[in-house]
Amino acid sequence: MILGLDIGGANTKAASSDGLFAASVYLPLWKGAPLDEALCSIARSQPQAEAVAVVITGELADCFSCKREGLERLMACVRRSFSVPAYFWGTGGFGWSDVLELAAANWSASAAFLGQEEHDCLFVDMGSTTTDIIPILGGRAAAAGTDFLRLAAGELVYMGLLRTRLDAILPAARIGGRSLPLAPEFFSIMADARLALGQISPEGYSCDTADGAGKDSQSALRRLARSVCADLEEIGEGAAMAIARQACSRQMEILVAAIARQSVEHSLEKVVAAGTGEALIAESAAFLGMECVRISERYGREISDVFPAYAVARLGEMAD
Amino acid sequence: MILGLDIGGANTKAASSDGLFAASVYLPLWKGAPLDEALCSIARSQPQAEAVAVVITGELADCFSCKREGLERLMACVRRSFSVPAYFWGTGGFGWSDVLELAAANWSASAAFLGQEEHDCLFVDMGSTTTDIIPILGGRAAAAGTDFLRLAAGELVYMGLLRTRLDAILPAARIGGRSLPLAPEFFSIMADARLALGQISPEGYSCDTADGAGKDSQSALRRLARSVCADLEEIGEGAAMAIARQACSRQMEILVAAIARQSVEHSLEKVVAAGTGEALIAESAAFLGMECVRISERYGREISDVFPAYAVARLGEMAD
Repeated sequence: MILGLDIGGANTKAASSDGLFAASVYLPLWKGAPLDEALCSIARSQPQAEAVAVVITGELADCFSCKREGLERLMACVRRSFSVPAYFWGTGGFGWSDVLELAAANWSASAAFLGQEEHDCLFVDMGSTTTDIIPILGGRAAAAGTDFLRLAAGELVYMGLLRTRLDAILPAARIGGRSLPLAPEFFSIMADARLALGQISPEGYSCDTADGAGKDSQSALRRLARSVCADLEEIGEGAAMAIARQACSRQMEILVAAIARQSVEHSLEKVVAAGTGEALIAESAAFLGMECVRISERYGREISDVFPAYAVARLGEMAD
Repeated sequence: MILGLDIGGANTKAASSDGLFAASVYLPLWKGAPLDEALCSIARSQPQAEAVAVVITGELADCFSCKREGLERLMACVRRSFSVPAYFWGTGGFGWSDVLELAAANWSASAAFLGQEEHDCLFVDMGSTTTDIIPILGGRAAAAGTDFLRLAAGELVYMGLLRTRLDAILPAARIGGRSLPLAPEFFSIMADARLALGQISPEGYSCDTADGAGKDSQSALRRLARSVCADLEEIGEGAAMAIARQACSRQMEILVAAIARQSVEHSLEKVVAAGTGEALIAESAAFLGMECVRISERYGREISDVFPAYAVARLGEMAD
């Protein structure tokens, strides 16, 4: 069995090539989260792994002065934590010459693995922080090579189901006939909106709250109210719920527009959806009248949430 | 002499009613900054103060569960730190019945003091984090009473010269013919753009950097590049400078629109400008063909930066 790892800035994910193991740990690297410890714990829990296959996106975390430093430190961390061989996936595969080819290549592993089964589709993977929208044409990813170019092309939408700040999704909320600009502070995130609306459970709120307070609905409503500089008592629960509804609705609109842009540009009619935001992607595809395959239907819910880790594990197995 | 204090979420400011003392200290309350210590140090440095007159805006900091708790804790902190009487200014003046009247009332002290000299004007005070745009009509502030209502009315623009995240000002940058959406992370702030353009000095960068790195121009350019998910080497200094220019230009546009809205709504032709962003306000007023008086011309640069603290000190003196 090969163990796949996807080391992101906020979350580190793992999956085994046999599909029996999948895990996601909230490890915010920029806050100095104990990655070594987490990787050692994963290593101990999976003693039957013959090798680890790794994708990295955490190199952008601002604790690193540049991507190269981030990649080298994360690679060293993997090598320290595992006694089995470690293979690193870059945008060109496991064979690479410059470490920078490994930067933010997790979508590339997903697309390379998926391309073996789906020759023409739009692969959409929405995590807690970002959304990858990757055209797969003739079984190969037709995406740009760097995050910068993918941002420009609309193949990387820097918006996720949970961690994205509310004001980035919804610049202004409509409350009681007024338009309220949201404060651009770290007051509230999409997870608050989804928790308030009952779309995620407190366990599904897998990142820190903005204020360090609870993952209960009252605390989420307080944070939603604070996003318009108000106490919850000041504007009432109805207004806080309205902010939550508008943020979720706006996020759906942004996702629909982003999927439509790529599907038109590449004449694709089928979406393959993965990630924590899989349901939202499926909903967007349905809205656009597009066929949608859910990774969870094919490999299970747990694998969908950590799909790049599973994909790179499977690719490692094939390369063996 | 009366000592005026303006306790904000990010900065605490002080000024004496004789205009001889002015100070601004970066004290981010939500990070547990040592306010007690800072206030005691101010108290020791101004032994001749007969009383302190205080305005508060820091009650919104998310370390407090609600505004009332924030106000009560900040008031207690003032009373612990000073042995002279403390008077707190609310939106209705020094006389108030409910502590909530003290919430975010610093603009109200500025306007009440200024209204004695300027009967009809738009008072605009741009700090590091927010901008107050207060219509003064017949010598009285014609503004809403709470931050929530002021946000809705456009009298509070949650945007400042330094601390505002870049992506809140500039959702997308144009670089090399491409449109690059900025990542909604805490990667870069307006102070980086202004430092890169030489508009502020490293000393003028009076808040934390996003990544904890330096306040030199190279570090600022790195953070600007990171805002579009890139290393500085990847996009080059010219592109990072383009992001800085576009952010500053966009901030000026937002300020011009906000000033225009209030001046049209209240038929006001004169702007009185204060705060760290005084020069930007004056530029906006000139752009709009409006007369502009700078508080720094009347009371000096240091007083302009901490005008609500000075205003409440003067109001305290008059009430005596």
